[in-house]
Amino acid sequence: MSIERRVLLLAGAGTLAAPLSAPVFLRQAQAQTAPAAPAATPQAPGFYRYKLGGLTVTMVHDGFFQRPLDGFVTNKPLAEVQGVLRDNFMPTDSLRIPFTVTFIETARGIVCFDAGNGVLPAGATAGKMIANMAAAGIDPARVSTVVISHCHGDHINGLARPDGTRAFPNAEVVIAETEWKFWSDASNESRSPQGQRAYFRNIDKAFNPYRGQLRVVGDNAEVLPGIRAAAAHGHTPGHTAFHISDGNAQMMYVADITNRPMPLALHPDYRIIFDFDPEAAEATRKRMYDRVATDRVALTGYHFPFPAFGHMAKEGSGFRFHLADWSSQI
Amino acid sequence: MSIERRVLLLAGAGTLAAPLSAPVFLRQAQAQTAPAAPAATPQAPGFYRYKLGGLTVTMVHDGFFQRPLDGFVTNKPLAEVQGVLRDNFMPTDSLRIPFTVTFIETARGIVCFDAGNGVLPAGATAGKMIANMAAAGIDPARVSTVVISHCHGDHINGLARPDGTRAFPNAEVVIAETEWKFWSDASNESRSPQGQRAYFRNIDKAFNPYRGQLRVVGDNAEVLPGIRAAAAHGHTPGHTAFHISDGNAQMMYVADITNRPMPLALHPDYRIIFDFDPEAAEATRKRMYDRVATDRVALTGYHFPFPAFGHMAKEGSGFRFHLADWSSQI
Repeated sequence: MSIERRVLLLAGAGTLAAPLSAPVFLRQAQAQTAPAAPAATPQAPGFYRYKLGGLTVTMVHDGFFQRPLDGFVTNKPLAEVQGVLRDNFMPTDSLRIPFTVTFIETARGIVCFDAGNGVLPAGATAGKMIANMAAAGIDPARVSTVVISHCHGDHINGLARPDGTRAFPNAEVVIAETEWKFWSDASNESRSPQGQRAYFRNIDKAFNPYRGQLRVVGDNAEVLPGIRAAAAHGHTPGHTAFHISDGNAQMMYVADITNRPMPLALHPDYRIIFDFDPEAAEATRKRMYDRVATDRVALTGYHFPFPAFGHMAKEGSGFRFHLADWSSQI
Repeated sequence: MSIERRVLLLAGAGTLAAPLSAPVFLRQAQAQTAPAAPAATPQAPGFYRYKLGGLTVTMVHDGFFQRPLDGFVTNKPLAEVQGVLRDNFMPTDSLRIPFTVTFIETARGIVCFDAGNGVLPAGATAGKMIANMAAAGIDPARVSTVVISHCHGDHINGLARPDGTRAFPNAEVVIAETEWKFWSDASNESRSPQGQRAYFRNIDKAFNPYRGQLRVVGDNAEVLPGIRAAAAHGHTPGHTAFHISDGNAQMMYVADITNRPMPLALHPDYRIIFDFDPEAAEATRKRMYDRVATDRVALTGYHFPFPAFGHMAKEGSGFRFHLADWSSQI
């Protein structure tokens, strides 16, 4: 590898403490004469690629949100939830909720599933999707379709830039009929649980830039060749999963049928504060996880641990998520 | 983000199809007027950072080696092993063995555990450590200590460059006494199992460049402050794990007490073709995995799925590896 190439790699990973304008020889010299200096410590970029049949899938991380564990599961004692998390080597004081957006390269352009949190204030732990897309070489202008699972802010706020223009300038936005009808009718706000009402405020800002480019489809319709909606109501009134296939290869994007699979897939009777209709959400997740586990269909989930791609296996009265092996070879 | 910075990020990830000498505006224009063009599809660089107490740990991937599953586990029928792998959503025809090197930044310099496969022919799926170190901003010249767990080629061949010079020009190499005495005595070759004899050929090439910089320590000695050897004999005569701590934070680098934890930790009675003394190896892995599971000590393993950092939990008559959550925040 040439020195120039190596420096570009370093710059690409954001690891250069020295300014980019410093001469190459100087930066090399600094590195070689200061063996004890601590390295700059950025994380690897948050993307991961794999093949689904002939399709290339890229999982793009949008960062995470941290909240108290207390109050997250609404129908079980905190100590019980903490016990499950402790058994699985997770923190028991707070819960980290990651966000990962699934991008698929098709012959007609790039399709993504949900849109991230958008631009957040400096210092926020989420809102990293655009930077991680750049690291992955995915230009937002090449996204031809944004498929929306549901209208919670962390899934739709990334549709619009802060100035109200499209984050995906050449994209159509696809959403299932039941979900769109519910959230686009402001009169539903007063009929919603208190914790769900704030979500109505995001709708116009997110969708208005795509006027004329919004495509509302049936709750179980084919969205594009090889991509089919699968009604998964409960988390929101029209929450939708999507089945993606290429030849015999298939996977489900399950969106938020659970939040993190640990503890929520292992204990599908745990109800969480973000579910609009907890009873319907529980029935949906039991039904859909049973399907993907029985048929051994791969899946991705929006709040699954990055890179958020793997399989569900039945375990006890629930399901355990098996993250797929990370591979250096796509 | 400026356009220049963005292009550097793209270049760093190796995603630019256009030559680097093309003007920036041209590359931008190409991206924006060709929405349907498939993206170049490189993988994210193979490194991952996290904190162990006040220490920064970087896991650096060296790629993988693929071999037939048949013949890997020597004391169980192939169909039984295939069943376990199928249950855990792994391929049943071939086995992918990943390599990941643990780097720890200390006040005295960087310590790494084992040295990767070294430079391999173009097209090889392993030998990626130096490139991934560059992506992580780790200059080999800043490595002050290379700690060797055992003398199999995939752990030591990366010590030397093809021209016979040091891959880590400023490093000392540390190895436990029993392991060093065995492999540095060529007369042991004829006393070794057939499958182990070829490893003797690597010893001189790997270690000779470090003449005067080789430190042989006791089998359970303190290697450096906070790093202690833990005899784990069996996989090789002097195979060694290492306990790493900073304050209350601790982890074990278990090296090859098993190869991949699935199926070998779940079934610690599975014996594999690479173990020098399979009976001793089995006793060692049962003892050490029991210790880390009981004490909830974090661990890294050389052949664990990347990023190869997590915990062991007891399950059935063995142990299940729980990969730690990937986090964008170190």
